[in-house]
Amino acid sequence: MEKLSIVKIGGNIIEDDTSLNAFLKLFSNLEGKKILVHGGGKRATYVASKLGIESKMIDGRRITDADTLEVITMVYGGLVNKNMVAKLQALNTNAIGLTGADVNSIKSDKRPVKEIDFGFVGDVKNVAYNAIDKLIQADFTPVFCAITHDGNGQLLNTNADTIASQVAVGMSALYETSIYYCFELNGVLEDINDKNSVVKHINANTYQELLDKGIIADGMLPKLENCFDALRGGVTTINMGNTSMLTQENDNFTKITL
Amino acid sequence: MEKLSIVKIGGNIIEDDTSLNAFLKLFSNLEGKKILVHGGGKRATYVASKLGIESKMIDGRRITDADTLEVITMVYGGLVNKNMVAKLQALNTNAIGLTGADVNSIKSDKRPVKEIDFGFVGDVKNVAYNAIDKLIQADFTPVFCAITHDGNGQLLNTNADTIASQVAVGMSALYETSIYYCFELNGVLEDINDKNSVVKHINANTYQELLDKGIIADGMLPKLENCFDALRGGVTTINMGNTSMLTQENDNFTKITL
Repeated sequence: MEKLSIVKIGGNIIEDDTSLNAFLKLFSNLEGKKILVHGGGKRATYVASKLGIESKMIDGRRITDADTLEVITMVYGGLVNKNMVAKLQALNTNAIGLTGADVNSIKSDKRPVKEIDFGFVGDVKNVAYNAIDKLIQADFTPVFCAITHDGNGQLLNTNADTIASQVAVGMSALYETSIYYCFELNGVLEDINDKNSVVKHINANTYQELLDKGIIADGMLPKLENCFDALRGGVTTINMGNTSMLTQENDNFTKITL
Repeated sequence: MEKLSIVKIGGNIIEDDTSLNAFLKLFSNLEGKKILVHGGGKRATYVASKLGIESKMIDGRRITDADTLEVITMVYGGLVNKNMVAKLQALNTNAIGLTGADVNSIKSDKRPVKEIDFGFVGDVKNVAYNAIDKLIQADFTPVFCAITHDGNGQLLNTNADTIASQVAVGMSALYETSIYYCFELNGVLEDINDKNSVVKHINANTYQELLDKGIIADGMLPKLENCFDALRGGVTTINMGNTSMLTQENDNFTKITL
């Protein structure tokens, strides 16, 4: 099977032009077939506030009413995505910017209302890996923003980590798929106060040990649960660390396998 | 040669949900390979004003400073384009929303500053018809918004009529290409006060007669000049009228050939 890399970047990289440009160069130099997934971050909050729309967060998650969805569609789907595509083109990466509505690539269900009504938020239901592969086979590099659709004309705000892992699981039918989650830390840390205490390899066994020792906690726990879900879904390797893990020079990041 | 239809709609259709939904149904039912091109219209002006950005127009053309380009990228490239794609998907048209940066499809030169500095406005230089055709061959329906790029990372605001005609000229290398310019009128009118006085057929000879009689004037003149440029560039037929010309039932519109 041919290899496919799926790289996810967060708001911290997008919001800073120097970081973004440096990252896009690394991404362009990454060899082989690849997909980029990006979130949006604070820019949406800024535009929303300028438009007089209050940003409501519950447990770090954005409540997406109709007005907020419009802002997200403008900022993630337009401003952030299309500028990134233009910059990648300048680096000779033949990028194509996508939401899950484009080529019907990612369908979601609107999250059911339980205790909290998250509004227009989608939980991924189906990844059209053959449609995405047509783009890859045409030598295009898909760049997904964190928006999906329900198939009935409704766009839905969707977590970018989830998009990365669900697209990776889908593409595993056709490729040996790896995910690179780029974030602020160098990887999963043994000691949260020592940024160099990177756990270089985690598998299902050592994961249990880390849990028992209490090393995995807080925000990292759901991230790693999602990783093991993706690995069980067919993804080969998941890497977590800063963007320099995309180069050959840095091996100080966390590699997760089953 | 296989047929390809390129349909261009303006702001008047986009701004009204009922018109837009009716149009998208007609477009979905249009047989054969097709491309949609849309402008943005007043929505960009509205969002700009909410964000405290003044919209400057000279001779009906928007002056595009950096802030205005951001708004256009948000509104045309994000809000309008992606909602249209989602609605087309619900109508079983496998749409893919694009700017000229995506798949490097439309490259422009930033308009040189002469008497007026239009800012980040692009004049189309190159249409990558083979890249666009890869999408069409994959059974996707491209939906272009009125944004191109310069190949060096800069997005550029570009007239949607021009995008439609330049894409049509480019695609003429591979297809027997027709353009449908949908607008408020039923077509080119003999008598501007009689909306039913449609000139049903114009060719290079009758065009000269219409010019001599003073029937073509004002806003229609540059539109028709562009049409003949496109026809001389290889486009087979250009149709101008309201959206119902996309159906078989209405033949009350203007058909332009060489």
